[in-house]
Amino acid sequence: MNDPFVVVGGDAAGMSAASKARRDDPDRDVVVFERGEWVSYGACGLPYYVKGEIQSLEELVSVTPEEFREERDIDLRTGHEVVEIDTDARTVTAESAAGTVVQPYGHLLIATGSESVVPPIDGVDREGVYTLGSMSDGKELREYVARARDGEGLQQPDRGPACRYLENCTGPVGIVGGGYIGVEMAEALAANGFEVSLFQRGDRVLKGFSDETSEYVADHLREQDVALRLDADVRELAGGDRVEAVVTDDERVAVEMVLLGTGVRPRTALAEDAGIELGETGAIATDVYRETSAADVYAAGDCAEATHVVTGDPAYVPLALTANRHGRAVGQTVTGTPTEGGGIAGTAAVKAFDVEAARTGVLDPDEARAAGFDPVTETVTANSRAGYYPEDGTVTVTLTADRDSGRVLGASLVSEYGEGAVHRSHAIVAALEAKATVSDVENYDLAYAPPFNTTWDPVLVAAKVLSGTLQ
Amino acid sequence: MNDPFVVVGGDAAGMSAASKARRDDPDRDVVVFERGEWVSYGACGLPYYVKGEIQSLEELVSVTPEEFREERDIDLRTGHEVVEIDTDARTVTAESAAGTVVQPYGHLLIATGSESVVPPIDGVDREGVYTLGSMSDGKELREYVARARDGEGLQQPDRGPACRYLENCTGPVGIVGGGYIGVEMAEALAANGFEVSLFQRGDRVLKGFSDETSEYVADHLREQDVALRLDADVRELAGGDRVEAVVTDDERVAVEMVLLGTGVRPRTALAEDAGIELGETGAIATDVYRETSAADVYAAGDCAEATHVVTGDPAYVPLALTANRHGRAVGQTVTGTPTEGGGIAGTAAVKAFDVEAARTGVLDPDEARAAGFDPVTETVTANSRAGYYPEDGTVTVTLTADRDSGRVLGASLVSEYGEGAVHRSHAIVAALEAKATVSDVENYDLAYAPPFNTTWDPVLVAAKVLSGTLQ
Repeated sequence: MNDPFVVVGGDAAGMSAASKARRDDPDRDVVVFERGEWVSYGACGLPYYVKGEIQSLEELVSVTPEEFREERDIDLRTGHEVVEIDTDARTVTAESAAGTVVQPYGHLLIATGSESVVPPIDGVDREGVYTLGSMSDGKELREYVARARDGEGLQQPDRGPACRYLENCTGPVGIVGGGYIGVEMAEALAANGFEVSLFQRGDRVLKGFSDETSEYVADHLREQDVALRLDADVRELAGGDRVEAVVTDDERVAVEMVLLGTGVRPRTALAEDAGIELGETGAIATDVYRETSAADVYAAGDCAEATHVVTGDPAYVPLALTANRHGRAVGQTVTGTPTEGGGIAGTAAVKAFDVEAARTGVLDPDEARAAGFDPVTETVTANSRAGYYPEDGTVTVTLTADRDSGRVLGASLVSEYGEGAVHRSHAIVAALEAKATVSDVENYDLAYAPPFNTTWDPVLVAAKVLSGTLQ
Repeated sequence: MNDPFVVVGGDAAGMSAASKARRDDPDRDVVVFERGEWVSYGACGLPYYVKGEIQSLEELVSVTPEEFREERDIDLRTGHEVVEIDTDARTVTAESAAGTVVQPYGHLLIATGSESVVPPIDGVDREGVYTLGSMSDGKELREYVARARDGEGLQQPDRGPACRYLENCTGPVGIVGGGYIGVEMAEALAANGFEVSLFQRGDRVLKGFSDETSEYVADHLREQDVALRLDADVRELAGGDRVEAVVTDDERVAVEMVLLGTGVRPRTALAEDAGIELGETGAIATDVYRETSAADVYAAGDCAEATHVVTGDPAYVPLALTANRHGRAVGQTVTGTPTEGGGIAGTAAVKAFDVEAARTGVLDPDEARAAGFDPVTETVTANSRAGYYPEDGTVTVTLTADRDSGRVLGASLVSEYGEGAVHRSHAIVAALEAKATVSDVENYDLAYAPPFNTTWDPVLVAAKVLSGTLQ
């Protein structure tokens, strides 16, 4: 054994790190422990699998375990749960059906990911209550959808207003939480004929986005006959063995199924037990190379913090790109090329039925002020293509900047699907990473032609208006 | 008269300047001389007007002369041709049907635009030879298309392979020049049933883009039955009164009409006559505030140079956004707020049938070396959406960077229409403006969700690959 690189967790961060380390140092032993059977899968695709647009879970897997083992020569051990990290002995202990193994490491990467938050509500353990954090969650949900559509063993309630997609309409179902998962699953379930009620504790969906984006998406959800219940404090998921109703402070809504889309938290138990420090966010703290408080022990992906490019502070934003990028950077670092892998901007994108939205940076005024900024925000709605062009639409852009410096702090964009809110956010991300000012953005020489934008792209219109406000 | 702000030319740069000056200083006299009748029109929309997707030229006008006069209180004098600028007397002389006026100025903006280059070929003055630089050009072309489709007074040749759009197929027609106008007009004419031959002097279309983009577009043009004649040196437009054939070194191609899409040049005669300096590019030289060699005389838009954000050198890239932006900046500057208005990145976008493409920055190796860089280029083709997502496609990204510094120099992107090549170029423009390195771009926290990209957006894939090459 030659100073092996050991990885705990076989999804995006772990497999990116293992693959990159293998490529950069063909002689190094690379060992990955994954407690489940799936590795390197696109959990972001699960709503589309449940919706039925993707036919098999295998399609979500970018590289199979066999390919990792045979083509990439990675010692991938699925069905192995790491139960202990000993940073003094520099070993991990893993249990599997075959017994217990103690594996020494030269470098270790903790890539244990995140887990769905199950809120402390009565009845969350009833049958028919789902989360969507893992491949097995996705499988169970899809099976539920298939059974419900076939009418097996489920009551057939009156067909509600949302029951217009399919002849064999089913439902009603409840979604608790109006974040990405809640919104994407509203689309997935409505497309399958379910009458969907979406329960959101606060007064708007997609709360990380701007108010205007949230309103745009909420209006669209209502247009799609999603029964949006804002300011709904869910008290109980009532029923017998099986869930039968969502009970809020105000009402009792009959449902046949509940999806909990109430966020995720980092899986940190293993790291904590090993005495590794967590950050203020509750995720594992690391330096810019993703090294933890324990020497030669790294953490990346959904279990770890990262540095926010706007605030410079640690932040916890568990998303796929960061996991891939930081995992890859660790793979380079442990094979002799120290690589920072960059910060995060809190960027996210979502499709909700026929609407697309993206957000990046700092939009919340309190969050901006806590980071020492004096935030000023403008929202504009501008044509997505030349006004005279046959296809047309609008993009609504919310842009936030610091009053004194003019530095761009964040943006939120929303449009009809295909009108480019998401790809247009890329320019703002680049601006955030460059610490650009609103005047800088206003002068960006962005591509223009009538089928793609107006002479001033909506992003430039927003910058122009905000620039005027700042003067 | 209170120190009037006088503008020569009533299109994008001129009217942007006049409008901004009026807004920022309501008491200032603002006088605009325009020799034609149209002002503030979107010449970029002319191909879509000829194609028939836009029904009237008026739709291309963003603000009418009446609105400028009545709502914006601008003294707009259409039908007035400025024939002399006297920088000592600080006057301009304009001629109209009503006679000659001598107008004093406090500040002057020259916004005389560009004109179509008519190459020195025999027969360019025959009937049936068109350019597409002005509203009247567009009107004539559309009338030609309508007449030809109705079969009035034109021969009806054998229907060629391109004659599949309409029952009353017409043609053949020739386009000389494979730039934006040539490619957009190939679409516009083919959509009207014409059999289109496109003659390009060099070995590829869209020569400002990368080789890979040019090839992608060329293949698509051929799929659309455009007869692409590369390396075609057009010697003559033969015929009697009317053009009948395009004659190259190799062949004689019968046509009923020819469109010259052979570029534009700045209209500088008025400035030159006034002793105002031109730059090396042949356009009017200015400082960062667009002030020319004559005090208080500015130049902006298609008649003027601008500073390239990558090379730092003057460049001539006559496009609409620059004209708008620099015109607006001059309007601010002359009313007391000196405003630079930024550089240009040579960004451009084009739609060709069902393909979209964008380019920005410096792609030509010789041009990069002349600016002191050592260019390294990689081209990748990556999924435009998650591989498992039902809609799918690819984006081909060419990315160029400087070997030593890693600084991004330019990019060219191409995809099917709707797969996002153009909006994705925005991030590269922002990177160029920020003088970002390939490593910076590789770490951009771009928005990701399965309907919009893969976890690594094609732009990031290109940066990752190029970053590897640079190591």
